[in-house]
Amino acid sequence: MLHPLQDETYMRLALQMAQAALGQTGINPVVGCVVVKDGRIVGMGAHLKRGEGHAEVLALQMAGREAEGATAYVTLEPCSHYGKTPPCSDRLIESGIRRVVVASVDPNPLVAGSGIARLRSRGIDVEAGLLADEANALNEAFGKFIVTRLPFVTMKSASTLDGKIAAKTGDSKWITGAPARELVHAMRHRHAAIMVGIGTVLADDPELTTRLSVPALHPLRIVVDSQLRTPLSARVLRQQDERPTLILTTDGADPAKREALEALGAEVLACGSGPHVDLPLAMRLLGEREVPSVLLEGGGRLSGAMLENRLVDKAVLFFAPKWIGGGPEAPDNAAFAGFGRMSEAIRLARMTVETVGEDVCLTGYPQYAEKEASSCLPD
Amino acid sequence: MLHPLQDETYMRLALQMAQAALGQTGINPVVGCVVVKDGRIVGMGAHLKRGEGHAEVLALQMAGREAEGATAYVTLEPCSHYGKTPPCSDRLIESGIRRVVVASVDPNPLVAGSGIARLRSRGIDVEAGLLADEANALNEAFGKFIVTRLPFVTMKSASTLDGKIAAKTGDSKWITGAPARELVHAMRHRHAAIMVGIGTVLADDPELTTRLSVPALHPLRIVVDSQLRTPLSARVLRQQDERPTLILTTDGADPAKREALEALGAEVLACGSGPHVDLPLAMRLLGEREVPSVLLEGGGRLSGAMLENRLVDKAVLFFAPKWIGGGPEAPDNAAFAGFGRMSEAIRLARMTVETVGEDVCLTGYPQYAEKEASSCLPD
Repeated sequence: MLHPLQDETYMRLALQMAQAALGQTGINPVVGCVVVKDGRIVGMGAHLKRGEGHAEVLALQMAGREAEGATAYVTLEPCSHYGKTPPCSDRLIESGIRRVVVASVDPNPLVAGSGIARLRSRGIDVEAGLLADEANALNEAFGKFIVTRLPFVTMKSASTLDGKIAAKTGDSKWITGAPARELVHAMRHRHAAIMVGIGTVLADDPELTTRLSVPALHPLRIVVDSQLRTPLSARVLRQQDERPTLILTTDGADPAKREALEALGAEVLACGSGPHVDLPLAMRLLGEREVPSVLLEGGGRLSGAMLENRLVDKAVLFFAPKWIGGGPEAPDNAAFAGFGRMSEAIRLARMTVETVGEDVCLTGYPQYAEKEASSCLPD
Repeated sequence: MLHPLQDETYMRLALQMAQAALGQTGINPVVGCVVVKDGRIVGMGAHLKRGEGHAEVLALQMAGREAEGATAYVTLEPCSHYGKTPPCSDRLIESGIRRVVVASVDPNPLVAGSGIARLRSRGIDVEAGLLADEANALNEAFGKFIVTRLPFVTMKSASTLDGKIAAKTGDSKWITGAPARELVHAMRHRHAAIMVGIGTVLADDPELTTRLSVPALHPLRIVVDSQLRTPLSARVLRQQDERPTLILTTDGADPAKREALEALGAEVLACGSGPHVDLPLAMRLLGEREVPSVLLEGGGRLSGAMLENRLVDKAVLFFAPKWIGGGPEAPDNAAFAGFGRMSEAIRLARMTVETVGEDVCLTGYPQYAEKEASSCLPD
């Protein structure tokens, strides 16, 4: 297919390079950069790993002397502060770049427009905002984390048309088809952590690793397990050589069980005095540990509790074309006490719909009603 | 928008005319016909009401002498038998039509290819199958009814992302947005009957009439009410001047309540000895009364029971972008005992997806597993 050659062409390439690095930059954003001179691409780069080269630096290195008088397309505003590497805006200035096209302005309060200002102050022609929506979406997790130090939580579910995530017997193999399940593994690769509830561990004994036709990254595995019921034989406790599985529990959990889990390599972290894991506290602790993104993979009770606590930022909901029945005995995709009035429901904003194999995938952003003012008296 | 002029152009027009008449032809199919001569449309017709003119006859009347040597586009094979009107194939032959293009072959065993054969035997050039899928879909209800004498049942539901059709308090106003609700009223117009369970009558007190910005047809209203719990003040019992509301119950229902309902104009029909309405029997009785299509509008228990009894032919499922919660206290969109294994689930075949306002609409055809051979011994 033929495309016109224009600013957007090069920015799309830069965005594709950035997107390809999703999941491998830790708490850093994904960034792509393309340098174009006299009608030819002379440099390309993407930020690939935290602590290593920034996209602009890599692209300028490739361009070498060709950078002089060239145009750089960068998906994110070049940094202007000294972090683990010197500021990219200085590097662009030194290279003799004449024009810089930027997609999104950095949400990082340390940058936020200062990179662009710095470039302009040196006479570089800067245009900002080209394909900004696409660029912002790529770094939606980074955008939240850098501002709040809380992980960006994506809730994923796979349910039947009657909203069930398993039959009444617990059988759940399979709800969605192979293409949807493969997509979920790709989502795992792109998140810093996967989180499930103890119910899912007990019912399905998942491994929670990323299994694809190519080698992929295995995110931190997190089990929310208020009473430490995770079996010592659970698959989620295997393959902890690289990184221990994190079990979130409560102060009251059995110390002996805790020791046994730790002896297998797991890390156990108490979040509150119970009886249930304090989920808002858990998210703060994950943020402190520099976990910028969490893929919440159920079950229904944990998803419901996360929604109820307004901790879900994004939802990716697969619906398989089938009815399983089973009434209350078959688990719901999001179980929580719920609201009395339909108008109080948690809304899924900016919903998009696509088909994945035979299944339907709805993606959107939960929108929580304003919290009511506390009715407690101030004394 | 410009379209090429070709056979398909005229057949699409004929299909649009047929589609417009959906809901107003009783147990008859919808049919459209366009007659074209020397590059000009000379006749158009659609079957508008049972017992009145067929599409071909009306189009040929409009064409008059121009029909000689012309081409007729008909969405359904012209009939060759004497019904309430003389056979259309004879009328086409008499008119001097030279060529007939047919979309779908008539599923009516009385016609089934014989109309086309009759035309061909008189030297008319007949092409069959153009846009046949679209034409068959228009008459999917007719196609079932004419062969089985059972109504074609379309299950409609409107649920939240967690599969609920109301909050735990019963509040269900509103789940979907105005565009989806308006579409449901248009669906009512196009069906011979609307059916709900007694739970829905008690919870929502629906009127079950067709309310649109233009006058529309009001289908037969049916309540499945095994114990005759329909309140005498129920809205579904109002406006019975034209046609009584039909209440399906069981032999054991209270005769005094039955009399009271009949005194208000309703018709009460016992379907089996109970405790629940015998739904397969109910469908047979509706077929005997020449009800060719039923829009099943819930609630969850009736939808579940109809699915379980393999009586749902088509499903139109709206999902609103919201979670309401409430666990087992909030009703499911399709409640039935269910299966033990995910592989046994009832599948929704040929699913299509569209957005309607802010909601998602999934449409498809339930596909039931083969019934297991009876395990009863033959003695």
